[in-house]
Amino acid sequence: MTRRTPTKIALIGGTGAIGEAFALRFGRDTDYALTIGSRDERKAVEAADAYRSRLRERDAEPRITPAPNVDTAADADIVVLSVPAYYVEETVDAISPGLDAETIIVSPAVGMQSDDDGLHYNPPTTGSVLGLIAETAPDEVPVVGAFTNLSADRLVDLDTSIDADTLPVGDDNDAKETVAAVVDSIRGLRPLDVGPLANAAEVEALTPLLINIARYNDDMENVCVTFH
Amino acid sequence: MTRRTPTKIALIGGTGAIGEAFALRFGRDTDYALTIGSRDERKAVEAADAYRSRLRERDAEPRITPAPNVDTAADADIVVLSVPAYYVEETVDAISPGLDAETIIVSPAVGMQSDDDGLHYNPPTTGSVLGLIAETAPDEVPVVGAFTNLSADRLVDLDTSIDADTLPVGDDNDAKETVAAVVDSIRGLRPLDVGPLANAAEVEALTPLLINIARYNDDMENVCVTFH
Repeated sequence: MTRRTPTKIALIGGTGAIGEAFALRFGRDTDYALTIGSRDERKAVEAADAYRSRLRERDAEPRITPAPNVDTAADADIVVLSVPAYYVEETVDAISPGLDAETIIVSPAVGMQSDDDGLHYNPPTTGSVLGLIAETAPDEVPVVGAFTNLSADRLVDLDTSIDADTLPVGDDNDAKETVAAVVDSIRGLRPLDVGPLANAAEVEALTPLLINIARYNDDMENVCVTFH
Repeated sequence: MTRRTPTKIALIGGTGAIGEAFALRFGRDTDYALTIGSRDERKAVEAADAYRSRLRERDAEPRITPAPNVDTAADADIVVLSVPAYYVEETVDAISPGLDAETIIVSPAVGMQSDDDGLHYNPPTTGSVLGLIAETAPDEVPVVGAFTNLSADRLVDLDTSIDADTLPVGDDNDAKETVAAVVDSIRGLRPLDVGPLANAAEVEALTPLLINIARYNDDMENVCVTFH
């Protein structure tokens, strides 16, 4: 299938920290129409207003509208799940009726658990969070992991350059290429293909490692990664 | 315990690919006395001769001597296990009688399995290869993971700069600091502390990810990583 160039991106859970970060970076660096999804429409309206204001202060003219999660997913070309890993399954269940083969689900989510020593990768029984999403979503809907190892705190600060790599992973190569182009549209981000869904666990396991590095090194915070 | 500055490094399994890489980098960049260990003493002699010749061509004056694995470990300040993950347990068993609290075991080993899609992290039941080493070694011997995510092929080519990070991990902070200083003595390598042994699995899981990135991106090979 040749996929059309995406124009509409839905940020599901777009009122949270990583949703805010995506809204600001996409709003500043790209021309995509963004919808800010939330289970609570009032929160979506407030967040969309706040993001637009902050971007206009920077002379950007973002196309940002609020919507309930379920509606925004049905209308988008790309649905970015900006929710914590433990909400991923119920979120995908909720939006699935509006999805079809023309909509790509993108997820940066990682399952982690914390102990006294640090953060640890804690995948669901499917082997990866991305695997859980693929199992939960309708079969025809392509699922791509991307933006997985990025710091929301770094992304949300538009005065900070990212200059980091992120690793699209998934079974549908067309969808993955489409998502790679979306990643590439964000200034300073480089997409590096890491293969099919079966390779998602190692991508997800990188996130707790980055957080542990930040914890044990005084001069590092909001750690990102470059492969070379 | 305040640890003395290490002067002798034993490369256990030093005739293999990663042992060769360590011998050449340590031989060129540092003043440590290196012993090349092997179960087969003749192979150790041949490898030590070859490493010395290659380093002298570069006007280095390396201190490299061969020895059986068991002897070289007993005499060293730092023992680098340059063996595949599936030989780690028997190797540690073999050298353990010569080890004490004054000797640090260092391991870059990672357990991986391959399928059609790529390489996957495959830890032993202890949760990490480093955990297996700590369980196998005498209690008083400090164990540090380091040099874990480096490409032997990149290290062995002395014309290539590394400029990469590597992540010392382990429970003995003094030993870890000593190893970090050893890492730092190799040109282009930066050590970043990643906490106690419990955090080793995420470090080890990075190695198959690097290999998968190399496989799925035409312009990447012998991938190393920088955190920032």
